[in-house]
Amino acid sequence: MTRVYNFSAGPAVLPEPVLERAREDMLDWNGTGMSVMEMSHRGKAFVSIANQAEQDLRDLLQIPANYKVLFLQGGATGQFAAIPMNLLRGKTRVDYVNTGAWSKKAIAEAKKYADVNVVATAADSHFTTIPAFDGWQRGSDAAYLHYTPNETIGGVEFHWIPESGDVPLVADMSSNILSGPLDVSRFGLIYAGAQKNIGPAGLTLVIVRDDLLGGAMASTPSIFDYQVQAEAESMSNTPPTYAWYLAGLVFQWLKEIGGLKVMDEINRRKAEKLYKAIDNSAFYTNPVDVAARSRMNVPFTLADPELDGLFLKEAEQAGLTTLKGHRSVGGMRASIYNAMPEAGVDALVEFMVDFEQRKA
Amino acid sequence: MTRVYNFSAGPAVLPEPVLERAREDMLDWNGTGMSVMEMSHRGKAFVSIANQAEQDLRDLLQIPANYKVLFLQGGATGQFAAIPMNLLRGKTRVDYVNTGAWSKKAIAEAKKYADVNVVATAADSHFTTIPAFDGWQRGSDAAYLHYTPNETIGGVEFHWIPESGDVPLVADMSSNILSGPLDVSRFGLIYAGAQKNIGPAGLTLVIVRDDLLGGAMASTPSIFDYQVQAEAESMSNTPPTYAWYLAGLVFQWLKEIGGLKVMDEINRRKAEKLYKAIDNSAFYTNPVDVAARSRMNVPFTLADPELDGLFLKEAEQAGLTTLKGHRSVGGMRASIYNAMPEAGVDALVEFMVDFEQRKA
Repeated sequence: MTRVYNFSAGPAVLPEPVLERAREDMLDWNGTGMSVMEMSHRGKAFVSIANQAEQDLRDLLQIPANYKVLFLQGGATGQFAAIPMNLLRGKTRVDYVNTGAWSKKAIAEAKKYADVNVVATAADSHFTTIPAFDGWQRGSDAAYLHYTPNETIGGVEFHWIPESGDVPLVADMSSNILSGPLDVSRFGLIYAGAQKNIGPAGLTLVIVRDDLLGGAMASTPSIFDYQVQAEAESMSNTPPTYAWYLAGLVFQWLKEIGGLKVMDEINRRKAEKLYKAIDNSAFYTNPVDVAARSRMNVPFTLADPELDGLFLKEAEQAGLTTLKGHRSVGGMRASIYNAMPEAGVDALVEFMVDFEQRKA
Repeated sequence: MTRVYNFSAGPAVLPEPVLERAREDMLDWNGTGMSVMEMSHRGKAFVSIANQAEQDLRDLLQIPANYKVLFLQGGATGQFAAIPMNLLRGKTRVDYVNTGAWSKKAIAEAKKYADVNVVATAADSHFTTIPAFDGWQRGSDAAYLHYTPNETIGGVEFHWIPESGDVPLVADMSSNILSGPLDVSRFGLIYAGAQKNIGPAGLTLVIVRDDLLGGAMASTPSIFDYQVQAEAESMSNTPPTYAWYLAGLVFQWLKEIGGLKVMDEINRRKAEKLYKAIDNSAFYTNPVDVAARSRMNVPFTLADPELDGLFLKEAEQAGLTTLKGHRSVGGMRASIYNAMPEAGVDALVEFMVDFEQRKA
C-alpha cells in the first residue's frame, strides 16, 4: 500500500491515524463485538461516542455554553435553505456578502425564502479580493448577516471577522473550520459540511446560539428545525452515526497534536511555503490579493496552459493527486486542509520547482 | 475479537464480508492510495463506485428504466417532508395509511404541507393488524397514496401491494427493502433510509418514476428537489460518499449470495424459526395477527415481565445483544434483517428455549 498526497478540495484527505484507528475498529469497537456503524444510535456505546465528540469539539473551539452543537445531515447546501427557514423569525430581509461560488449558491437558495440584500460583492475583481468592510451596504432590518469565510474555488479567505452588531452573524465555515482558533461568541450561527476539515461527507455541523432557536417557519422540514434537533440532541431522526464517530476521531487527533493554536501554526507554514514557491516563480501565478489569500485552497496557473495536462500527469506519477483546478477557474488547485501533512506541501513545492526547471 | 449477534432495529448489523472488505480498503481503495472517504465525488474512482452501486441495485430490484435512483441525505424523516413538497404538484390532498409509529410520523410531517386523509388505521387493534384493503376510504383527488410496508416497532408488515390505480403509490421501505423480490413498477416512489437493509445511517435511497419529477414546490430545499438531484445524478451537493460505497458493497454481497429470491428464502426461514419458537411456547407471546407478522422485526413478550431484565442480561452474556423492545411496546424485539445470519436466529431460539426451561 502506498498512500498518495491528495489535494482534493473535498471530500478531502483525512489524518492517517484516524483512518488507521477506523480500520482497527471496523468489526469490533472497544470490545462491543460490533462496528460503530452497526450500533443503535440510542445505545450506550454510541451515545458515549457522540458525547465525547461534542465535548472534544467544544474544547477545541472553546464553544460557550449558550451555543448548541448539532450533528446533522444534508451538507452546507441543506443549510443554505435551513438558515433562512430557521432564522428569519418573522422578518423578510437578509444580508449576504458575495465573495465567490459558494456565496452565490447560498444567496440563490436563500432567495427562495427571503428578500436577499447583497451587501458587498467581489465581482469587480473577479472574486480575487475580500470587499472592505467599510463599503458594505447593510440593510436596516436584516434577520442576519451571512458570509463565506473561505471560498474553495476562488481561493479567497477572510482573515478577520465582520462586526455585525446586534444582527446575528452567520458563517459557512465548511472549508476552514478548525484550521485555527476562533472566537465563536462573535457568531450567531456557524455551519460546516464535514468533508474538508471534519470527517467524511454526509455530516454537517451547526453551532448555534440558543436565543436563535425556536422560530423556524411552519414549512421547515423537521430534520432542519434547529429547535427540534437541539431538543433531541441531534437525534430527532437517526443521525449519520459513522460520520459522527469519524469526526470524533478527527477532533481527538487535533487535541493530540496540541489543539488549534498548533494547527494554526502548521497551516500558516504550509500556506507560506506554497505561496512563496508561486511568488518566487515567473512560471506559476496565483491571482488572489495577498491579504485575502486562502490558507486552505491555493489555486495557481502555469504560464503556458498547454503544459497543464503534462503537469497533472507527472504530478500524479509523483504521488501528488487531485490537483486539477475547478473548471470555472482552470489551472491547478492545491487544497491543503488540516489533514494534509507538511511533507505533502514540501513534496508539491519540490515537484513544482523541478517541473518549472525542466519545462519552463 | 468476538462478534456478537446484534438484533438492533437500526442502525443494524451489516454483512461481515462487507465490513471485512471496508477494513481492507480503509487506507487504500483499489491502489488509488486513498480511502474512499477521501475521494472527490467527481473523480473517476468514486464515480465508478457510485455507478456500480446503482447498477447493482437496478439489477437486484429489476428497476425499470423509467425510474430514477437517488442516493440522498436526510433519512426517511427527511423524505417525510420531501415527498409532499415534490409530489403535490398543485394538488392539496394526500392519502396515508396508518399502521403504526412510522406511519404516524410520516402523517405528522405531511400535514405541514398538505391536507392529509387517513384512509385506514390499525388503531383499533393497537396496530397489530394491517387494515383490509376493501375498507380503505380513499380521497377522490389525492396527489398520492402513502403507506409503510413494514413497521419496525409494532412488527407488522404488508405481504401484498395496495392497488392504487392512477394515483402514485408511495412506500417507506426503510425496514424491508431488498428483503425479497419487488415489483417496482407498481410504485410511483419508494424510499428507504439505509440503516437497516442497505448500509450505514446517513444515506437515503429514493426510487422515483420519472413522470413524477419536476413539480417541486418553490420552497423545496434544493437538496430535496428530486428533479435537481436526478439531473445531477445525486450530486447537486456532495453526496454521502462513504455510505454510498458501503451500500454498493452490500448490493454486491446480495448478488453473491444469489440475489433477492435467495434472500427471500433465507428471510422466510429465519422468521419462521423465530415465530415457531414463540408460538410453541406458553411463555413467549407475539401479539401480531399472523397474516401481518413482520419478517424483519419480531417483538415478543415474556409471560412474566419481571424476568425481562434477567432475559436481557443473560442474552447479552450469550452474545445476543440489543434485544430490548421499544419503550412504547415493552418486552423484547429481535430485528432480523438481511444481514442477520440464520445462525444468529438459531442461537436466539436456542437461548429462548433454554431460558424458558430454567425460569418459566
